Amino acid sequence: MKKGCKYGTHRVIEPKEVLPQAAVKICNDMELFDNEILIDVQALNIDSASFTQIEEECHHDIEKIKNRIMEIVNEKGKMQNPVTGSGGMLIGTIEKIGSAVEGKTDLKIGDKIATLVSLSLTPLKIEEIIDIKPDIDRVEIKGKAILFESGIYATLPKDMEETLALAALDVAGAPAQARKLPKEGDYVLILGAAGKSGMLCCYEAKKKVGEKGMVIGLVRDEKSATFLKNTGFCHEVIIADAQNATGVLNKVLEVTDGKEVDIAINCVNVPNTEMSTILPVKDEGTVYFFSMATSFTKAALGAEGVGKDVNMIIGNGYTKHHAQITLEDLRESETLRKIFEELYV
Amino acid sequence: MKKGCKYGTHRVIEPKEVLPQAAVKICNDMELFDNEILIDVQALNIDSASFTQIEEECHHDIEKIKNRIMEIVNEKGKMQNPVTGSGGMLIGTIEKIGSAVEGKTDLKIGDKIATLVSLSLTPLKIEEIIDIKPDIDRVEIKGKAILFESGIYATLPKDMEETLALAALDVAGAPAQARKLPKEGDYVLILGAAGKSGMLCCYEAKKKVGEKGMVIGLVRDEKSATFLKNTGFCHEVIIADAQNATGVLNKVLEVTDGKEVDIAINCVNVPNTEMSTILPVKDEGTVYFFSMATSFTKAALGAEGVGKDVNMIIGNGYTKHHAQITLEDLRESETLRKIFEELYV
Repeated sequence: MKKGCKYGTHRVIEPKEVLPQAAVKICNDMELFDNEILIDVQALNIDSASFTQIEEECHHDIEKIKNRIMEIVNEKGKMQNPVTGSGGMLIGTIEKIGSAVEGKTDLKIGDKIATLVSLSLTPLKIEEIIDIKPDIDRVEIKGKAILFESGIYATLPKDMEETLALAALDVAGAPAQARKLPKEGDYVLILGAAGKSGMLCCYEAKKKVGEKGMVIGLVRDEKSATFLKNTGFCHEVIIADAQNATGVLNKVLEVTDGKEVDIAINCVNVPNTEMSTILPVKDEGTVYFFSMATSFTKAALGAEGVGKDVNMIIGNGYTKHHAQITLEDLRESETLRKIFEELYV
Repeated sequence: MKKGCKYGTHRVIEPKEVLPQAAVKICNDMELFDNEILIDVQALNIDSASFTQIEEECHHDIEKIKNRIMEIVNEKGKMQNPVTGSGGMLIGTIEKIGSAVEGKTDLKIGDKIATLVSLSLTPLKIEEIIDIKPDIDRVEIKGKAILFESGIYATLPKDMEETLALAALDVAGAPAQARKLPKEGDYVLILGAAGKSGMLCCYEAKKKVGEKGMVIGLVRDEKSATFLKNTGFCHEVIIADAQNATGVLNKVLEVTDGKEVDIAINCVNVPNTEMSTILPVKDEGTVYFFSMATSFTKAALGAEGVGKDVNMIIGNGYTKHHAQITLEDLRESETLRKIFEELYV
């Protein structure tokens, strides 16, 4: 077996000197390098933005969608939508483990896993597309893929439906951070609290801050507020427009009796919510941006503009044990599991 | 005196419900609100991107530049370039202090200050433009400005030239963070180490990590490397293309004997350097993006893609005592002061 790079650069064809995610074309030859793991793939979960784009391009014609996906993978060696740049994840069974990683990984041949690195960097070869389920962006295939040494994954649990596990794993970074960041007694504001990642963050933060702390869930309308209140995941639920920074600040100060919060977590899916996340946080507090709609410069210049000495963190989709933490949440909370089954499966 | 909002929203004219920086037009009436400070302005230091744009638009004609600046300020109530969106800073003397901030601020009437919040949110009224110095983006004026209660500033030191102080204050956030982040014995990588903010970061980090630590300065060519080595601000200087992540990683591992660094600080002014900053950092290490060319999504998805559990921080232009720290550096280091005088004054 040939020796491979931890990050998979040995498979980059074009352009040279970039990582697989930035590459236009990678090698999807299924002959294994010594630090790679071969996966027998059952299904791709295409990123929602990517799937929608392909669906529209193909006028919702299933055969055309199949052809377009085959075409992309044959061309690029990976399922990375050329328009959106995004990928998705895959489900499959471990078929072979490279000699250099044997014993170093806890994976065994036959394990069923979901990859948690993006399809936009995963070498993939599709033999046949069996079925497409447009309502859940799922593509069932016969094919193989490669997991790099640095690639992250989750072994699929046996005590819950695969689709339920996948729906939660999709946002696994958020709850793991919400468990790590707050201390007992902290006041935590969560923007976009009724969404998938927002709810998980509320749930984790509430356990962590305890009786003396406060978790404040911010939602945009009465309907979401009622829904979120019923979950019991927050101490307080407030309704505000997340794009109106001073409006958000005032609503927060109302429920905290004028106290600025220790931590704000942004899970909102619209742009221009940076200042709403920064303003309610006390000096030396923490601002955590999990939303992909965050603008780096708006956050950096905005905090300076209002003289806020806050620690602003870029939401990393990965943190240690993030998959386990997220699946545990679904096991622990009947409410959470029911909501996920109803809304996301 | 009327009561004002800490963040100056009471001066926003259009659109409603935004902070002054996001506003198209703010009120530059110089009648003071109770929490405002009136500044008698001597000069504007226009942001370099903004000044260049105006210069080109006006074909380098000084009279036309004067008129364009007057026009912008009269229209918007602040000196925010409508094309670049950026502002700059101003120098002036404290003329009047609002009743609600009297005693709460350490400023006295007659103090000479530089504002460290952007001109893009500072109410400004220009009576007359006296002179324009295009080589240092400086506009000498007769006029008044308002500092909001949340506005940050630095009292100009008496022991150094004003232009020297300004050149350093411009990047004050970076060295203050480079003092805060590292611990003794840490390995710190600084990308863009020969630039203004990069050099200050090297200088601060080297003091902090001590004998057992290592500060590695990354530069792009031989010339910058020789320059940086001569300063003595780094333990090691490496040459690499900051857009080539694996190239950077390999160069770093060479000088550290295979050890990943604890902290990487990005002060590079070009895009696509996120992965070069993330890859060399050890798990649970810190990545600090001070560069305004940083892409939020590239950092967030990139770290996940390579399975790096690193803490990624958005460079906040403000942190407590940042101005004092930066000016102290110039007083402490003869080398630093000389370089700044030669290159940036």
